Amino acid sequence: MSTPVRPPLKFVTFEGGEGGGKSTQLRLLAEALRKAGETVVTTREPGGAAGAEEIRRLLVEGEPGRWPADAEALLHFAARAEHLAKVIRPALDEGKWVLCDRFADSTLAYQGYGQAQDLGWLQQLRSQIVGKTEPGLTLILDLPVDIGLGRAAEHQRYERMGRAFHERLHAGFLAIAKEEPERCKLIDATLPIEKVAAAVRAAVAKRFRVQL
Amino acid sequence: MSTPVRPPLKFVTFEGGEGGGKSTQLRLLAEALRKAGETVVTTREPGGAAGAEEIRRLLVEGEPGRWPADAEALLHFAARAEHLAKVIRPALDEGKWVLCDRFADSTLAYQGYGQAQDLGWLQQLRSQIVGKTEPGLTLILDLPVDIGLGRAAEHQRYERMGRAFHERLHAGFLAIAKEEPERCKLIDATLPIEKVAAAVRAAVAKRFRVQL
Repeated sequence: MSTPVRPPLKFVTFEGGEGGGKSTQLRLLAEALRKAGETVVTTREPGGAAGAEEIRRLLVEGEPGRWPADAEALLHFAARAEHLAKVIRPALDEGKWVLCDRFADSTLAYQGYGQAQDLGWLQQLRSQIVGKTEPGLTLILDLPVDIGLGRAAEHQRYERMGRAFHERLHAGFLAIAKEEPERCKLIDATLPIEKVAAAVRAAVAKRFRVQL
Repeated sequence: MSTPVRPPLKFVTFEGGEGGGKSTQLRLLAEALRKAGETVVTTREPGGAAGAEEIRRLLVEGEPGRWPADAEALLHFAARAEHLAKVIRPALDEGKWVLCDRFADSTLAYQGYGQAQDLGWLQQLRSQIVGKTEPGLTLILDLPVDIGLGRAAEHQRYERMGRAFHERLHAGFLAIAKEEPERCKLIDATLPIEKVAAAVRAAVAKRFRVQL
């Protein structure tokens, strides 16, 4: 007897380094889904719930070295635990789509690949906190480091962390995409916005068998 | 060949439920150590470092159910990671004593025994974050629940959590003391302050072979 295949959760995360256009693409996908009659919740990390947004402020403000890397990883997962409990799981339970700008892969990439926190430990945390609420699809908007840093105005602290950090981050996202090819789809973010949006819609249509 | 015995770290934590007089006893022990010529750093959790104090505010303010229990445990360990990196380890490295009002046992007792978070997971977090910086001595100021709740004015949120919670908490501290008899010493906190202080000094003198 084979294990019954659970359909992927209608939970789509947008990942990648700085300047890849995640928030723009998230908005465009939300519009496309709504046009197709779907109900969509858009959200972001760190943050996305009241307490998680307070934790976000601790994370995005201040100097690059303000938190030890282990504390930083724990703050991200603390915010994520609340975001999951208060926003993501309730929306999925009501049959809504959830589109999220960054999620657990960012913690793996930034704190693990970027800041050399133990990957096994971060995976354990992920498994404990995220559990069965793993995204059905993760779109990694991929951009060469130079182009991304030129575009970015997003993570005030991380932008100042230097080129070697961003190289490790980029390599980290590629490694994550390779490890989980069913969940993760690399999207070429050097293309014009509308072409990227079409690639995003195509990936969603294929994964969830919807017409967009 | 036997493993060389590492002397216990001069890191003393005060634990127990509400109203046991931890902060008073910590202050009295600090005075006794200083009179004996020792250099002492006194601190507390959650908090004890700049960022950790900001996390403390997220933890002690607001309604009892404001954080999911997993997020709450992670916030405690995030604050602890910074506290260890910025305050506790540097002080111990300089040969100072560190006396801390609450530490990792409180997370085990409150979030594990009290709020039913998985104890194995909390122990893993503890091992990852605290590592070799486990206290040399933990003084658990033990008090029947009724007396403690009558006295307490400490944790605004926890006081409102009800009697059954505080019973689990009490049982949790007793279980911790039983599991690690070398590190943990139960102190009867129903006695008058000066008798408790004498028991604290005796436990410290015995464990660290100092005269107090």
